[in-house]
Amino acid sequence: MEALRPLDALNKARNSKVIVELKNNKRYVGKLVAFDIHINTVLDDAEEYVDGELKRKLGTLFIRGDTITIISPQ
Amino acid sequence: MEALRPLDALNKARNSKVIVELKNNKRYVGKLVAFDIHINTVLDDAEEYVDGELKRKLGTLFIRGDTITIISPQ
Amino acid sequence: MEALRPLDALNKARNSKVIVELKNNKRYVGKLVAFDIHINTVLDDAEEYVDGELKRKLGTLFIRGDTITIISPQ
Amino acid sequence: MEALRPLDALNKARNSKVIVELKNNKRYVGKLVAFDIHINTVLDDAEEYVDGELKRKLGTLFIRGDTITIISPQ
Amino acid sequence: MEALRPLDALNKARNSKVIVELKNNKRYVGKLVAFDIHINTVLDDAEEYVDGELKRKLGTLFIRGDTITIISPQ
Amino acid sequence: MEALRPLDALNKARNSKVIVELKNNKRYVGKLVAFDIHINTVLDDAEEYVDGELKRKLGTLFIRGDTITIISPQ
Amino acid sequence: MEALRPLDALNKARNSKVIVELKNNKRYVGKLVAFDIHINTVLDDAEEYVDGELKRKLGTLFIRGDTITIISPQ
Repeated sequence: MEALRPLDALNKARNSKVIVELKNNKRYVGKLVAFDIHINTVLDDAEEYVDGELKRKLGTLFIRGDTITIISPQ
Repeated sequence: MEALRPLDALNKARNSKVIVELKNNKRYVGKLVAFDIHINTVLDDAEEYVDGELKRKLGTLFIRGDTITIISPQ
Repeated sequence: MEALRPLDALNKARNSKVIVELKNNKRYVGKLVAFDIHINTVLDDAEEYVDGELKRKLGTLFIRGDTITIISPQ
Repeated sequence: MEALRPLDALNKARNSKVIVELKNNKRYVGKLVAFDIHINTVLDDAEEYVDGELKRKLGTLFIRGDTITIISPQ
Repeated sequence: MEALRPLDALNKARNSKVIVELKNNKRYVGKLVAFDIHINTVLDDAEEYVDGELKRKLGTLFIRGDTITIISPQ
Repeated sequence: MEALRPLDALNKARNSKVIVELKNNKRYVGKLVAFDIHINTVLDDAEEYVDGELKRKLGTLFIRGDTITIISPQ
Repeated sequence: MEALRPLDALNKARNSKVIVELKNNKRYVGKLVAFDIHINTVLDDAEEYVDGELKRKLGTLFIRGDTITIISPQ
């Protein structure tokens, strides 16, 4: 059996709702529609949370990969 | 069906109004006219916002990719 | 005898419970299911600890490699 | 029609007066005479501003690209 | 005589007790069992010190290279 | 006429007195004797200034490129 | 006459006493025995200084290049 790779795990989450957290402590929740090897990520129906509080609804959201700490299917 | 890539999403936003936010918490709003694989980005009719307040009108604006956290079509 | 490489050590921990600590001082504990040469890492049954206190249960968790400081089998 | 690239936009500003802002919040104003793919940039007749106040006249100024946040034709 | 390279010096310390210090001011002491060109490093019987005080015994420890400032045989 | 490149501008300053400023706000003044594409730089007869005050005379000084913000012929 | 390169200057300092300063403001003094293109550096008979005060004698010391700001022959 071949070992799972990290991007395979992201690929399984495609089109599902995920949480993406950034180095600046912002949290985005939305549908994962795209990512690449730099972990540049695109969410649809994205919502921004700061300190657990909903701040903005952003629709489509491009997140630069190097600002991301974690991504987790919700 | 081929999976969407992050830069495809940016490409769809070309010539539309986008919000670009930086690691230093500045926010720029303008028409997305160019970007590259480093996410170096050029806006036209760019406006700078700090803490939600309009600070400057900048016309054409080149933003170095590694300072960007998110880009979102407005 | 060939010298051990760092990723060999991670590979031995695959499918075991590990602690992953980040530059932002968050600590994740879970089963190591995937990693790559950038140390992008995927945990299953991940729990988040802040200051030693359990904050969240996250299920599957993708961690961007460049935010990681240490990984240790528990 | 081919899509504009970010460095094309900088190229249009060559020999014009530009504002260059750095991650350390310093702002330089001068004539853009050179740049490269790392956004290493050279200004002529450069002036340094801190908090909007003119601090120094520097003549020729080499700015390392990775310290730059934005460049805008004035 | 050929000039010594930095990784040769690390190689001499293999299987010996070393101190590894991180950018976050944590200090790990343990047996150096593996390292690579990124200075990703693995210690055995690792102990964590904060402000000179022993905090944890960690057994096997993978340290991401880019968080390391110094490594010194003890 | 071929466009000037940033390193051409540094090359013109070779063997002249330059100011080099770092991300940690230290300023070095000395004769520019060497630089490379990473902007690793060597000064001769280097003097260190902190907050505008002369702190040390250092003779030959190697400065790692990624710590540099600006270089300007004095 | 060929232009001097920064690593040539370091090479001249090989086997001599040098000062190495880090981004975290620590200063190491010792005999330069090895360095590479990343400026990973090895000192022998290394002493650590913090705020100008001798803190530790470390013997052989490997310093990761990206933490270094300056190197100067003493």
